[in-house]
Amino acid sequence: MAIDQLAVARLSEQFSAIRSLSEKLASKLQHEDTIIQAMPDVSPPKWHLAHTTWFFERFILKEKNPSYVPFNPNFDYLFNSYYETIGSYHPRHSRGVLSRPSMEEVYAYRNYVNEGIVSLLKDYGDQLPEGVEDLIEIGLQHEQQHQELLLTDVKYNFSCNPMLPSYTEPSTTSNHTTTDHQSQVNEIKFEGGLVEIGFEGAGFSFDNERPRHKVWLNAYQISSHPVTNGEYLSFIEAGGYEQPEHWLSDGWATVKKENWKHPLYWRKAEDGWYTFTLTGEKKLNLDEPVCHVSFYEADAYARWSGKRLPTEAEWEHAMSSIPIEGNFVEEESYHPIAGESYTKSPIKKAFGDVWEWTSSPYTSYPESKPLEGALGEYNAKFMCNQMVLRGGSCVTSKLHIRPTYRNFFQADKRWQFSGIRLAGDLT
Amino acid sequence: MAIDQLAVARLSEQFSAIRSLSEKLASKLQHEDTIIQAMPDVSPPKWHLAHTTWFFERFILKEKNPSYVPFNPNFDYLFNSYYETIGSYHPRHSRGVLSRPSMEEVYAYRNYVNEGIVSLLKDYGDQLPEGVEDLIEIGLQHEQQHQELLLTDVKYNFSCNPMLPSYTEPSTTSNHTTTDHQSQVNEIKFEGGLVEIGFEGAGFSFDNERPRHKVWLNAYQISSHPVTNGEYLSFIEAGGYEQPEHWLSDGWATVKKENWKHPLYWRKAEDGWYTFTLTGEKKLNLDEPVCHVSFYEADAYARWSGKRLPTEAEWEHAMSSIPIEGNFVEEESYHPIAGESYTKSPIKKAFGDVWEWTSSPYTSYPESKPLEGALGEYNAKFMCNQMVLRGGSCVTSKLHIRPTYRNFFQADKRWQFSGIRLAGDLT
Amino acid sequence: MAIDQLAVARLSEQFSAIRSLSEKLASKLQHEDTIIQAMPDVSPPKWHLAHTTWFFERFILKEKNPSYVPFNPNFDYLFNSYYETIGSYHPRHSRGVLSRPSMEEVYAYRNYVNEGIVSLLKDYGDQLPEGVEDLIEIGLQHEQQHQELLLTDVKYNFSCNPMLPSYTEPSTTSNHTTTDHQSQVNEIKFEGGLVEIGFEGAGFSFDNERPRHKVWLNAYQISSHPVTNGEYLSFIEAGGYEQPEHWLSDGWATVKKENWKHPLYWRKAEDGWYTFTLTGEKKLNLDEPVCHVSFYEADAYARWSGKRLPTEAEWEHAMSSIPIEGNFVEEESYHPIAGESYTKSPIKKAFGDVWEWTSSPYTSYPESKPLEGALGEYNAKFMCNQMVLRGGSCVTSKLHIRPTYRNFFQADKRWQFSGIRLAGDLT
Amino acid sequence: MAIDQLAVARLSEQFSAIRSLSEKLASKLQHEDTIIQAMPDVSPPKWHLAHTTWFFERFILKEKNPSYVPFNPNFDYLFNSYYETIGSYHPRHSRGVLSRPSMEEVYAYRNYVNEGIVSLLKDYGDQLPEGVEDLIEIGLQHEQQHQELLLTDVKYNFSCNPMLPSYTEPSTTSNHTTTDHQSQVNEIKFEGGLVEIGFEGAGFSFDNERPRHKVWLNAYQISSHPVTNGEYLSFIEAGGYEQPEHWLSDGWATVKKENWKHPLYWRKAEDGWYTFTLTGEKKLNLDEPVCHVSFYEADAYARWSGKRLPTEAEWEHAMSSIPIEGNFVEEESYHPIAGESYTKSPIKKAFGDVWEWTSSPYTSYPESKPLEGALGEYNAKFMCNQMVLRGGSCVTSKLHIRPTYRNFFQADKRWQFSGIRLAGDLT
Repeated sequence: MAIDQLAVARLSEQFSAIRSLSEKLASKLQHEDTIIQAMPDVSPPKWHLAHTTWFFERFILKEKNPSYVPFNPNFDYLFNSYYETIGSYHPRHSRGVLSRPSMEEVYAYRNYVNEGIVSLLKDYGDQLPEGVEDLIEIGLQHEQQHQELLLTDVKYNFSCNPMLPSYTEPSTTSNHTTTDHQSQVNEIKFEGGLVEIGFEGAGFSFDNERPRHKVWLNAYQISSHPVTNGEYLSFIEAGGYEQPEHWLSDGWATVKKENWKHPLYWRKAEDGWYTFTLTGEKKLNLDEPVCHVSFYEADAYARWSGKRLPTEAEWEHAMSSIPIEGNFVEEESYHPIAGESYTKSPIKKAFGDVWEWTSSPYTSYPESKPLEGALGEYNAKFMCNQMVLRGGSCVTSKLHIRPTYRNFFQADKRWQFSGIRLAGDLT
Repeated sequence: MAIDQLAVARLSEQFSAIRSLSEKLASKLQHEDTIIQAMPDVSPPKWHLAHTTWFFERFILKEKNPSYVPFNPNFDYLFNSYYETIGSYHPRHSRGVLSRPSMEEVYAYRNYVNEGIVSLLKDYGDQLPEGVEDLIEIGLQHEQQHQELLLTDVKYNFSCNPMLPSYTEPSTTSNHTTTDHQSQVNEIKFEGGLVEIGFEGAGFSFDNERPRHKVWLNAYQISSHPVTNGEYLSFIEAGGYEQPEHWLSDGWATVKKENWKHPLYWRKAEDGWYTFTLTGEKKLNLDEPVCHVSFYEADAYARWSGKRLPTEAEWEHAMSSIPIEGNFVEEESYHPIAGESYTKSPIKKAFGDVWEWTSSPYTSYPESKPLEGALGEYNAKFMCNQMVLRGGSCVTSKLHIRPTYRNFFQADKRWQFSGIRLAGDLT
Repeated sequence: MAIDQLAVARLSEQFSAIRSLSEKLASKLQHEDTIIQAMPDVSPPKWHLAHTTWFFERFILKEKNPSYVPFNPNFDYLFNSYYETIGSYHPRHSRGVLSRPSMEEVYAYRNYVNEGIVSLLKDYGDQLPEGVEDLIEIGLQHEQQHQELLLTDVKYNFSCNPMLPSYTEPSTTSNHTTTDHQSQVNEIKFEGGLVEIGFEGAGFSFDNERPRHKVWLNAYQISSHPVTNGEYLSFIEAGGYEQPEHWLSDGWATVKKENWKHPLYWRKAEDGWYTFTLTGEKKLNLDEPVCHVSFYEADAYARWSGKRLPTEAEWEHAMSSIPIEGNFVEEESYHPIAGESYTKSPIKKAFGDVWEWTSSPYTSYPESKPLEGALGEYNAKFMCNQMVLRGGSCVTSKLHIRPTYRNFFQADKRWQFSGIRLAGDLT
Repeated sequence: MAIDQLAVARLSEQFSAIRSLSEKLASKLQHEDTIIQAMPDVSPPKWHLAHTTWFFERFILKEKNPSYVPFNPNFDYLFNSYYETIGSYHPRHSRGVLSRPSMEEVYAYRNYVNEGIVSLLKDYGDQLPEGVEDLIEIGLQHEQQHQELLLTDVKYNFSCNPMLPSYTEPSTTSNHTTTDHQSQVNEIKFEGGLVEIGFEGAGFSFDNERPRHKVWLNAYQISSHPVTNGEYLSFIEAGGYEQPEHWLSDGWATVKKENWKHPLYWRKAEDGWYTFTLTGEKKLNLDEPVCHVSFYEADAYARWSGKRLPTEAEWEHAMSSIPIEGNFVEEESYHPIAGESYTKSPIKKAFGDVWEWTSSPYTSYPESKPLEGALGEYNAKFMCNQMVLRGGSCVTSKLHIRPTYRNFFQADKRWQFSGIRLAGDLT
């Protein structure tokens, strides 16, 4: 398939830019930090760096370059995450035992594969084999997802160390001070009706966002702002974590089993509440969006407040024309902020800051077609027992998010940068 | 609220009929059978008999009859199933340790409460207090659900005994011989469009079936018959349980962890397949609907066969005008049958035989309102991590099922009489 | 082997007496009580009744009577407890799912096997085949062990029912009122030296009590009485359960994991301490021997009190000439008592009331020979990770205990009638 | 207490020598290797380096030097292993999450504390405060134990990496080639009688080796050599792992649960057996002592071979006058060897190569007195549910072992360098 030279150059440039961001993010860690896995859900940073590299090696270089020599044949076993159809793989919960390959070797691996991809682009020029452009694109989107996971996982790992290390110093260059107070919360109303959601048109999208399709929406409202720490604290202080009537049955069982009393990373001290961040533990800012809550907590908070969570269709319909601006990983704040100067839309913080739980279980769209081959496992096989989140967070790349983007996690997960936006019926 | 005398008499009669069916079902058990709980999901038969009685006592007699004297104050703790808002309760997984109250006492309890309800109806006559009629109605629907569970649980309990006891003798009076061969499977086509689902109108429905609401459906097809044992056996023989590509990720993990190789209760002997039933173990009849499969298996079978499961909206739309006829508990076959003479509809066995897994997670309908008070816990708090099943089974009462009826279980559960009907896209 | 007619008659009589005691003990239960297994360590009463019967069937009737027709061939699988060398068996933790065979069938089984044994004795007369007398003897000792376990297990099962049922009414015929105060505790001194322990001579003993062998003992002292509830309460009130310094490492881990704060079956109410017994819950009698403590608690109590537990050699040496008198199952108190009028020995309550934990791990005696064949599994294969207890309890038969008798349980077990007697060094 | 100057100089020199060996052992690891903990029983190498340092800081510098400034106050929590009486500590199973302090900081910590100890010795000279000499001695013995654990744990950690990294290159300087065949196995006979075991006299010993005390031994024999891989292979090939009759009940349960079929680190390939070592995977040498077997396997092997394990008293009595020579960590083979040229005693390999399981549970000696204060927790609180091993291994320091030395582990542990020597009765 011919693509123009300019497109190839742009792809090559984009490849280098996104790949080097991973290394920049990892450069703030000590070698010992790159190997820990404090719970099965997180992966060691080194594993993220190697797995994303393996993705390019396995799905592009091995498939499209007949003369390609693998860097290390063991890596197919070690760095395959979950692609059952291409072979067995190292168990997820045991990634933390892999002290070897060392970071040095992983960087050599990255360089080797980077050169392989760049050469491929150069050698073929505008005669790129069928599918290569799409595969590089998906590999880069995949790399961006793991950049977010790397930061998310480092935060969790560090939180388990009683010395509470910082990943980095607080940013001093952010345009948005964290002391900005937010403006008044409003309920924004939508008529609903027979609308369309899902991705259509140019640019990248994942298979799980397609096809665009019709959905009926009753009239609804959605809040102008995500729920803040201060608002969530009222729920805590009203006894929210002791009252089963607000909770789903599975949620209440989790509250009791895990002894939850507040969001992940919060700590109550004599002089008030603290929260752990990637720049160390700090006083809880009541104006920041609440973060690191599970779906169960989001749902209980919504019920307690007399509202509900939006469906993913409502969320997408409401946000579809809002520009992608906000507090993303490029800001280097690595934390949701109180300020809200990004957009003139009446709906604030639709993108960035915190992923917003919806009330929608993660299922396939009508007539959807997963990618063919092993990449069909990328998204589709997780469509059970997970809930959809929307909008990206402060550790998502601005270049990665879309109104139609569907993130998904189990209802009890809290280590993601996940928050709450409320919705309601209009009848 | 005044209701006419005839309605009261009818309610009283219905009350006696449904309540005594429970005792009839239990009468085939020995006392020792009534106390076992072979896994946390099942309850001892005695517990079902007592819990349904407690339901009438707690929600009607205690609430509506100021002079009511409870049979035994401990029973509020022992026989509350999961109503958090009315007090603590005996842990579900420990119901099997409750040898006391004995069956004799439980029957005395049933009589005591039955007399209480019948007196209430007689005393008030057509001046029944607000809500009593609805509460009796829900109590009877609840009793019917537990009649089905009692049989389902006895089957599981007995299957764990190496001697494989029979609950009862095979029925000889059934109109439908189990050797009938089924007619040709057809795919029935529907145009879809903006349709309505959910309950509306007269008669009983649960809060989770309401309100009736609009849903957009793309054109679709649905199979004329549920999948048979013979069809499912082809999936097994083709290696379905060894090939991860057919399975959801959670499903594949379950297959490996539980070492699943076939539906629950199947056993491969030298002379072929057997299945355990409430009338003992018998040769697998290839023409019967496959039963005791999990959602994971239903979904994997559908993907393997190039089709998919229907959504619950598709299912309800397709079945909405089919008469409620079929192989129900009243037939006393206690097993799905091969025969299909019930209905002239092109869609066969829509009701009875096996519950049919849909692809729809169990969530609330738009603008739905759970019941107020503790009974709001009846359905709504389970709307997470469960999948919807439709149509009733051979152990469901014919009087209990509706096209809009929503049953729900976790995706890995197999001890229910659950089967598969396929659907597909038309584009 | 010829044995005299009188001996055969005596054996037959003894057989009937011991076998019918099991049924007498079970007769106080309702059928529903006979099937429950509230934790893996306990067995349902019905299982005890069947297993002891199977022991006679399997090891005597099947082996020694060529024309014997088994009652039910499934019972070899169902009622083998742990004899690996004679075949597979139903998993121990699942005995509670066996509602069938019913109690009625189990009684028929008992009668059938009883008749088999009695006929065997009658038919052979004084020409009993080699080993039969010994096998009947061991079968009766085994039956007595399960009589004790039946009572011990019923107590545990009933304690898990919030209604706290009673096994029987408090005995009114006991010679020993439970209000007797005990006499002054003394420390009885022994010189030690090169002594002998272990069984030798006429009468029954288990293989684990043999051979009699030399042991060196330093001079030591042993307490005249077991530790009382009152003494143990001082340990609790002094913070014993909160202070790691008294505890073995595994013990302290268990205290924290299980949240132990007092012996099993104790409950602190507003008006003081209560304890659950086979005759219902009653006020804690401070003068009774403390019961239902684990080895960990016995050991921690001893360390806290500045003493230690005796070794099993010290215990046996001290008790070797004390008559077998005391509070046994024949007294029908089913609970340790405060009174102590049984013996003139300066050491009180050496036998009966409570099993006494020793500091000795359960290991084989020098040059010991386990029984040949499957019965070699009876005792020897448990000689790891268990501690020795001595002296019998209030639910042991007086006819079953000896100074050389070795009971054994894991260090964390508390459901046995286990207590504490202290010892100390003399240097 | 005055000690002579020479003794202080010798202590100081010994301190430096032993402390620097730890660093030499760790120097062969990459930073990423120092933080992994592949199972709860092992500790990360970095943790060993820090914990042994903390031992000197906490028990000597903080106690004996009033002006001592702790290196980092958090380290009391992070690097306390299990001393309950001096404060809470980081959970053992989570040591692998402590990426910080980094190796660099840990080395700084070691230097800081080393200087503190050396200064203390210099400053006080021959006026060392009471107990300091003993505390330094115990600290050094403790360091040596952790040197062995570091190597043992690295082996386990590396074995979990599918790439099977080597800790070091095979030694080429060893005096003892691994191809030496062993001489004929003999059974060495001992008369027994009233003997004494336990430590007495000059030099260091742990509290658990004291006091020396009398024990009666029947006449016995003990094998001249530990069991070899070849001998153990016969047990495997004879079906040892499939036959319950050889095994203790807990052992058989472990075999089935863990699916054991051979010692830890063995692997059967098409061309024969391999074993993983600290110098990589290599062909199994049939003449080497079998290693990495549990007590259960040692005991089952002994029973299968018609012999038994020695008691610890028999072992000590037999080995008491054999010189401490053999294959120790100083040889840098890091693996048991086939050669046996060390000693002229008829008993070979009594010390070094492999720890030898005894049949003795780990309990306290008569009239033993644990150390006072927190160090009383060092050994005594583990005297339950563990078995004694004797003789040291190829990763033990030659300077660390004694005939009276008691090592101890749970019966199912296999990651230690543990082997088998047989014994038997003579009657």
